[in-house]
Amino acid sequence: MDPEAFLDMANQVIKLKMFPYFDIAHSLLCALAVREDLGAGAQAFSRKHPLSCWLSTMLVIFSGAMVANGLLGEPILAPLKNTPQLIVGTLTWYFVFYSPFDIGYKVGKFLPVKIVASAMKEIYRAKKVYDGVTHAAKLYPNAYIIMIIIGTMKGNGAGFVKLLERLIRGAWTPTAMEFMQPTFYTKASLVASIIFVLDKKTDLISAPHALVYFGIVIFFVYFKLSSILLGIHDPFVPFENLFCALFLGGIWDSLAKLMGRGQPKE
Amino acid sequence: MDPEAFLDMANQVIKLKMFPYFDIAHSLLCALAVREDLGAGAQAFSRKHPLSCWLSTMLVIFSGAMVANGLLGEPILAPLKNTPQLIVGTLTWYFVFYSPFDIGYKVGKFLPVKIVASAMKEIYRAKKVYDGVTHAAKLYPNAYIIMIIIGTMKGNGAGFVKLLERLIRGAWTPTAMEFMQPTFYTKASLVASIIFVLDKKTDLISAPHALVYFGIVIFFVYFKLSSILLGIHDPFVPFENLFCALFLGGIWDSLAKLMGRGQPKE
Amino acid sequence: MDPEAFLDMANQVIKLKMFPYFDIAHSLLCALAVREDLGAGAQAFSRKHPLSCWLSTMLVIFSGAMVANGLLGEPILAPLKNTPQLIVGTLTWYFVFYSPFDIGYKVGKFLPVKIVASAMKEIYRAKKVYDGVTHAAKLYPNAYIIMIIIGTMKGNGAGFVKLLERLIRGAWTPTAMEFMQPTFYTKASLVASIIFVLDKKTDLISAPHALVYFGIVIFFVYFKLSSILLGIHDPFVPFENLFCALFLGGIWDSLAKLMGRGQPKE
Repeated sequence: MDPEAFLDMANQVIKLKMFPYFDIAHSLLCALAVREDLGAGAQAFSRKHPLSCWLSTMLVIFSGAMVANGLLGEPILAPLKNTPQLIVGTLTWYFVFYSPFDIGYKVGKFLPVKIVASAMKEIYRAKKVYDGVTHAAKLYPNAYIIMIIIGTMKGNGAGFVKLLERLIRGAWTPTAMEFMQPTFYTKASLVASIIFVLDKKTDLISAPHALVYFGIVIFFVYFKLSSILLGIHDPFVPFENLFCALFLGGIWDSLAKLMGRGQPKE
Repeated sequence: MDPEAFLDMANQVIKLKMFPYFDIAHSLLCALAVREDLGAGAQAFSRKHPLSCWLSTMLVIFSGAMVANGLLGEPILAPLKNTPQLIVGTLTWYFVFYSPFDIGYKVGKFLPVKIVASAMKEIYRAKKVYDGVTHAAKLYPNAYIIMIIIGTMKGNGAGFVKLLERLIRGAWTPTAMEFMQPTFYTKASLVASIIFVLDKKTDLISAPHALVYFGIVIFFVYFKLSSILLGIHDPFVPFENLFCALFLGGIWDSLAKLMGRGQPKE
Repeated sequence: MDPEAFLDMANQVIKLKMFPYFDIAHSLLCALAVREDLGAGAQAFSRKHPLSCWLSTMLVIFSGAMVANGLLGEPILAPLKNTPQLIVGTLTWYFVFYSPFDIGYKVGKFLPVKIVASAMKEIYRAKKVYDGVTHAAKLYPNAYIIMIIIGTMKGNGAGFVKLLERLIRGAWTPTAMEFMQPTFYTKASLVASIIFVLDKKTDLISAPHALVYFGIVIFFVYFKLSSILLGIHDPFVPFENLFCALFLGGIWDSLAKLMGRGQPKE
């Protein structure tokens, strides 16, 4: 592929307008996720507790921005002032939960629809991570860790509000804490945040900014599609295992075991 | 009744001073609610954990303002800077929990006292809903949903902090989530918020503002008294059922059942 | 001791630089507390969930500032912008959890190290309480209760985030609420906050400010050391019992019992 054309394409991607199509895709997948999370009783629940159902879906849709605002001392409700986005979210929620003969849900679960929506959601995610890092960098120009945290939270907000979202629906699952077993989305958002921070704040990455952004988008979309189509769920696992063995005690623990002392109490 | 005099009265109500009598009534009912919530072990608990008891009562008394502040990015503790209100709250709490021979509790439970206090609390509630809507409208002039949420939260703050309030007392009841089974107060505050927003932001309501406000006050007081005296707990139920049948799947579900397909899995 | 020299020493203490030695002592004790809280499975947990382990340790280290910020409507993440402090915290965490042959943990548990670190942490605590009171006094010059709350929260932040800290590690213990059975640290911070408020806002305390501060430091250190060395855990208990008997129903309850009526239902 011609590098000139490639850079052009990257510049296109970076300027992509999100509203309304990407918002629809994002809201659709969020509503589907809430419905899946409710399990077999989802329809009965949506009839008995519509308010709780609507609120938890809105929380998931706006989770990234709300969590980031909460952590940065900005109004948690502020994301809701975007009325068009709120209407799109509500219509999608209605479509997934209450459409006659459950058409909405079936359409959403239809593989081609799901693939397109997922790809769009990943493009949106990359933008959110980037926006989060940029926003945090404006507030705290030297606090790399805050940029990374905000980028990660905006990228996978749904993971971090899972406990609260379920609590709104009256279910409490303290062991489902995202930090315990971070999902692939959290890890990918974390890596993307780190790359954006390096790109913004250091000279380590010499590629043009549009290319870095485009690379992250491709990385997100590629792994999402391979997760849906091929069932590869977490390409980070081998790196993590290596890191844990080297730095988080793995090797020393084995050594201690071999030497028959300093054995960790378990 | 003479319309002129009626409008005069409405104008009086809108300018009613809340401190101290309405604050006393509100605090009294809040402290009684905390004590009722503690059940049979209330007195023993208040002796063993006075700090936790005081804190949870204060949380209930200031709940509306604290929740609204938290959601709007304002200091959660700010309502406590109103020292006279805090002293009234503390004295009422002391009166209900620790007065000799339990006089405070018995006085608070005495029906005429309860009726007067409840009516005053409802007048206060109307003011809080109105203040909440006005405050949110100043911050986000076009975000109707934020105005409605803040109005509702200020109107029935105690409902939304129930989980936290109990947690301060060491009890955790995740299924008592207000959004699951909204109480009448939440629904009434919601309706009042919507009416205030319509009155403020549109031309749909042509009545003078004082009359609208007065109407809400009468509506709140009337239903509170009928709830205490006649046992009517939720006049919204028939409307909700109609709405659910029409829009939230009721009719379609029945149709699907009749046609023997598209049956919701339950 | 010469009063002049004593005042000189007090003035030295008030100007003591906290970074880095006091931060190291504080972080070390926080990491040890997290490890103790994890119990026998601590090492296995730190290998399986390093992210959750790191996050909960950072939450404990920065708890006071984060809780105070959250309550005052300031950014919760802001304390993390202090990069050197974050690095010290991370290194200490690594040292306690992952050092080869568990040296870090063993060093931290070694009595002389623990005594010195504890004494330093108490000096730090006094400074935090003072800073909290001062900060709140700037925001709300007349709200004594807010100053006291913020002082207490900054003094014993770890106690107030215990529930959240454990939740990050996937454990939920609603009955471990600090307000139910406040620890000595909470009570001491509360008393220190009240003294600082009196010193700042009234003329009741005529001693020079440096002496008041120094007195609090000595009080904190003295009781911490007597707790470690002599096992005296809570010198406040007799005063509390007296206060409860006089004001929180104790005497009246006994009287009611004697008179055989008004008996509290338990």
